[in-house]
Amino acid sequence: MMRAAVVGGAGYIGGELLRLLVGHPQVELAAATSRSFAGRPVDGVHPNLRGRTRLRFCEPSALGEYDVLFLAGAHRETMRGMPEFLRHAKTVMDLSGDFRLRSPETYADYYGTEHEAAELLDTFVPGLPELHRAELRTADRVSVPGCMATAGILALSPLADAGLIDGEVTADARTGSSGSGATAGPANLHAERSGTLRVFAPTRHRHEAEMRQSTGLTVRMTASGVEAVRGVQVLCRVRLAGEAGERAVRAAYRRRYQDEPFVRVVAERRGQHRLPDPKLLSGSNFCDVGFAVEADSPYALLVGALDNLVKGGAGNAVQAMNIRFGWPEELGLEFPGLHPI
Amino acid sequence: MMRAAVVGGAGYIGGELLRLLVGHPQVELAAATSRSFAGRPVDGVHPNLRGRTRLRFCEPSALGEYDVLFLAGAHRETMRGMPEFLRHAKTVMDLSGDFRLRSPETYADYYGTEHEAAELLDTFVPGLPELHRAELRTADRVSVPGCMATAGILALSPLADAGLIDGEVTADARTGSSGSGATAGPANLHAERSGTLRVFAPTRHRHEAEMRQSTGLTVRMTASGVEAVRGVQVLCRVRLAGEAGERAVRAAYRRRYQDEPFVRVVAERRGQHRLPDPKLLSGSNFCDVGFAVEADSPYALLVGALDNLVKGGAGNAVQAMNIRFGWPEELGLEFPGLHPI
Amino acid sequence: MMRAAVVGGAGYIGGELLRLLVGHPQVELAAATSRSFAGRPVDGVHPNLRGRTRLRFCEPSALGEYDVLFLAGAHRETMRGMPEFLRHAKTVMDLSGDFRLRSPETYADYYGTEHEAAELLDTFVPGLPELHRAELRTADRVSVPGCMATAGILALSPLADAGLIDGEVTADARTGSSGSGATAGPANLHAERSGTLRVFAPTRHRHEAEMRQSTGLTVRMTASGVEAVRGVQVLCRVRLAGEAGERAVRAAYRRRYQDEPFVRVVAERRGQHRLPDPKLLSGSNFCDVGFAVEADSPYALLVGALDNLVKGGAGNAVQAMNIRFGWPEELGLEFPGLHPI
Amino acid sequence: MMRAAVVGGAGYIGGELLRLLVGHPQVELAAATSRSFAGRPVDGVHPNLRGRTRLRFCEPSALGEYDVLFLAGAHRETMRGMPEFLRHAKTVMDLSGDFRLRSPETYADYYGTEHEAAELLDTFVPGLPELHRAELRTADRVSVPGCMATAGILALSPLADAGLIDGEVTADARTGSSGSGATAGPANLHAERSGTLRVFAPTRHRHEAEMRQSTGLTVRMTASGVEAVRGVQVLCRVRLAGEAGERAVRAAYRRRYQDEPFVRVVAERRGQHRLPDPKLLSGSNFCDVGFAVEADSPYALLVGALDNLVKGGAGNAVQAMNIRFGWPEELGLEFPGLHPI
Repeated sequence: MMRAAVVGGAGYIGGELLRLLVGHPQVELAAATSRSFAGRPVDGVHPNLRGRTRLRFCEPSALGEYDVLFLAGAHRETMRGMPEFLRHAKTVMDLSGDFRLRSPETYADYYGTEHEAAELLDTFVPGLPELHRAELRTADRVSVPGCMATAGILALSPLADAGLIDGEVTADARTGSSGSGATAGPANLHAERSGTLRVFAPTRHRHEAEMRQSTGLTVRMTASGVEAVRGVQVLCRVRLAGEAGERAVRAAYRRRYQDEPFVRVVAERRGQHRLPDPKLLSGSNFCDVGFAVEADSPYALLVGALDNLVKGGAGNAVQAMNIRFGWPEELGLEFPGLHPI
Repeated sequence: MMRAAVVGGAGYIGGELLRLLVGHPQVELAAATSRSFAGRPVDGVHPNLRGRTRLRFCEPSALGEYDVLFLAGAHRETMRGMPEFLRHAKTVMDLSGDFRLRSPETYADYYGTEHEAAELLDTFVPGLPELHRAELRTADRVSVPGCMATAGILALSPLADAGLIDGEVTADARTGSSGSGATAGPANLHAERSGTLRVFAPTRHRHEAEMRQSTGLTVRMTASGVEAVRGVQVLCRVRLAGEAGERAVRAAYRRRYQDEPFVRVVAERRGQHRLPDPKLLSGSNFCDVGFAVEADSPYALLVGALDNLVKGGAGNAVQAMNIRFGWPEELGLEFPGLHPI
Repeated sequence: MMRAAVVGGAGYIGGELLRLLVGHPQVELAAATSRSFAGRPVDGVHPNLRGRTRLRFCEPSALGEYDVLFLAGAHRETMRGMPEFLRHAKTVMDLSGDFRLRSPETYADYYGTEHEAAELLDTFVPGLPELHRAELRTADRVSVPGCMATAGILALSPLADAGLIDGEVTADARTGSSGSGATAGPANLHAERSGTLRVFAPTRHRHEAEMRQSTGLTVRMTASGVEAVRGVQVLCRVRLAGEAGERAVRAAYRRRYQDEPFVRVVAERRGQHRLPDPKLLSGSNFCDVGFAVEADSPYALLVGALDNLVKGGAGNAVQAMNIRFGWPEELGLEFPGLHPI
Repeated sequence: MMRAAVVGGAGYIGGELLRLLVGHPQVELAAATSRSFAGRPVDGVHPNLRGRTRLRFCEPSALGEYDVLFLAGAHRETMRGMPEFLRHAKTVMDLSGDFRLRSPETYADYYGTEHEAAELLDTFVPGLPELHRAELRTADRVSVPGCMATAGILALSPLADAGLIDGEVTADARTGSSGSGATAGPANLHAERSGTLRVFAPTRHRHEAEMRQSTGLTVRMTASGVEAVRGVQVLCRVRLAGEAGERAVRAAYRRRYQDEPFVRVVAERRGQHRLPDPKLLSGSNFCDVGFAVEADSPYALLVGALDNLVKGGAGNAVQAMNIRFGWPEELGLEFPGLHPI
């Protein structure tokens, strides 16, 4: 059994890590930190874990040594604490935004502040198994991408890599409320957030930078909050290059994802489930990707959907851990999602 | 035109008062206070009022003199400020819980603390037109009842007053999230509150005391938060006295409510709208009441439903104001609610 | 009092027409047809109208003569019945899709079938007051545009008319469930529709054709169903022409809409209500439009939002009627919407 | 590997059986019937199973022989087909309502029609492991109880069996929309069902009869539809016998459930998760039960909550199968539920 610990275990990504690690057959969950809840039982904060763990939160200062350390702490705090975190485990999986962008200039541009540990940026491998599996087998510093970025990148990259996309990409991202975290504020108050269609980032969302970095495309993304707790969906409007049509698109997706355990191509001609819908993915590690090609035009719509706390966060991290330690990639990630929900 | 002001205008009850007063043909909305938003436009907090008012919030200390003052401030603060509030208007409508219970002992019992202005309790008339219309015509101190209390009292009182209820009453109250106010906290965070069935007051909710006081019945109420923003529904299980059956129950409701502008008796034999549902009442001042009598048994279910911010708060207060000033009772309260919604 | 009738009164647009007409001070609602519910009370189908009308549905064959006839019937049935409908009233307001597109070829292209009354197409005036007010003053045949089309056209046309848009437009439309009508089917079953992010028309939605026709722009629209009952929001990504920036955009919106009673420009720099959100518009006749211009780039996001049953249907029709009969444009449409909801 | 088949696999309970059986390590899912979808892939109807099964639905007439047959068909059809079903497998798990009530008279009373296979009623064992585990070890005919009945029985029976309940019980049951099945109709249309608080069975719900039969108590239950897809919660108001108080209640629950793998006692003094909430249980096989005892009175509130498709149906059936075949009781039922959701 590998010994794992989670920093920032009282948040939503942290809680999802705890759920997955508690159920993982090769892992012993040894510690979870929370400044606010130190000393209190984990299942008081995450009541879905009642009967599954007796662990209590501890202060970050009480961390010992572990085989793998998951960081689900706040942005900026993570980069500041990284030198310390690296002492607690050989393998570190960071789920904050701090080590996702390779260029300090891009970081400063999108986050509006200078990076404080720029010398470490190069040492992190992106925690996206579908694009970085080989590196992840030996990576001890992993930076898991953002939830909307993951959906967008998995939707775009098969076509981008095949040279099938011409020009700029318009992306429309929608996200549920858990993406903004477990800290209450006026914007995520139920009466305000319920049923909203809130365009909270009309331009320049941080995940746009990740999509640009990973695909090499000029992506222009708008992000909206919609009525959901979990779930991200990214719609990308692209212009297909040359004569490419539906057949070429489908072939590119198939080729890329046919052996992927957690990416399904969902692109049917009709029916209410014809394209990816995060509603079906709650709790699962799937990212569904799909497409629709406009008849008699070079335009296509690409769609990616996932659970922002699982494939868009904790599940992706566990998948990366499975790769790193040579375990079957699906281990602990078998839950397929529910219908209906 | 009467000049009106609202204390606590940035909250949800306060905002609903502003909506109703801005649209009221006999009222000039002269001021709205908010400590947090003083100096800022009202429509920045309540964006439904964009284009309808240019008023800005002011500090409570900036209040002048008005014909009528609506108090939508916090519990306890209201009782402390009451001597001061009474100087600002001849007629005061209080929507806090501070002056709803006539007995200081009952107040202390249910609120867990001593009343600080007990000498004023007797001077307030309950702002429930269906039970206190005559007094309201001349009342200058009005205390509007709680949202669940209003629904429960309107469901119970026709039978209680007719002596048709035998023994104790079990009440099951359900409420949407706006009832807990506009201040964000862990319990009303969207991700936590969404889709919940949260029994937040299994026993001894404060509105139970109001129902007991008003009906004279021993009511035992449980209160739950359900997925809704607006809306309260109270189910009361009663044992009918003597030989009373459906006919007697229907007659009692009809007799009581046939001329009421804002109470509708909804008790059909079948169909999806057979009993009161607050879903249909958002924005309206209706309280729908209904019943179902069990065949071959002396038991009946009584149901009351309303919009907690309108008939359960601001609308009730405006109706009381209309009565006080001799205007048509429906004035400014004509919106019937939406279907579907 | 003008006498009005509604064809297709049991549907959702029909029900909204009934709500507005029942409350309209210059209108007597004289008849409402429904084949399925003929003979039954209107408030049995639309329970929000309990206590507001005692009208019963009648068969279409029982229609008499009226001053104005609103058609909220099914697509295709409306074009077939139009010669008959025109005999029942001098003024006809059609809310179906049948007379929205001027070109029979475009109709056939988007609807997948030939138009059966193409000779009448030219005789209808678009029921969009903001663009066709002068014609509507004397129009006796009005075709109210589609809900998503209305939001998109009102967002796009100030910039389109000012020549500020360069090239093609990517539109992302989101709609609540009432847009698909009151007929139950697998796709709008609650357990399936709840919480979905369903891309039901990735390309070639019919409202796209209306947006193209009205603005002259090449619009590519994707339509998705989101968790809401009422409400449409359309996001348009545009490239601004020449040197146009935020100032020019704001000026174009202001110029166009400063005197419009039902269009509000919502484009703030921050806050949770910075851009139009249909959540706030339920029951109101507002269309909120707004924009965000990307810094250091020629791209902008334009947003339109409305209640699909009101400004996207019945309310728009009533506004057009008010114009036609020379009444104040806001008559019967005063409800401002709710916060929170 | 045991070979299993599901009758009625296109419904919601059927789909949940398929999800659990596909993931069960000791079971081979051999067949699933659906008249409407025969010949079509299972994952076209239940898209959460994409990538997990390639099974296609077959006609009921195509059924062969299996080790265990799960019946998720319609009421009445199941009793008519039972003689035939019993030929296809030695062990039959029925999830319809047809064999839940032991008395044909009670059946006729609550279902409004005569039972057509009354001679078989005695041969079925109730599929509620917490009360019938010993019988289930050898039972070949199992009738899984109703969802609301399961929650109510598990909440009531520890106290009922300990003689701690005095007099009649008032039960208030709330249910999500999946409980009414996958067939679309006016009542479960999204626009109608969304956000509703619909008292659909004010008295005499069929699950009341099961609660009476199992506990021996006179239960009076009201059933309401609330905004949720999955989830049932039952609140029971009881009068405690003699001097029983919180300590005795807690002791009775502890004693009964301390070794149960799928019942958790949730009865805390404060906090938003103090009592059972089905929101946390989606997809899990837990039934959470809890209580609150009124201070200075003999009354208590008992609460049971579960996912109506899992512990209230398919999960319960799989648990019973695990017992029948001597497997670990949790096998295939490990998913703990999500937080937040």
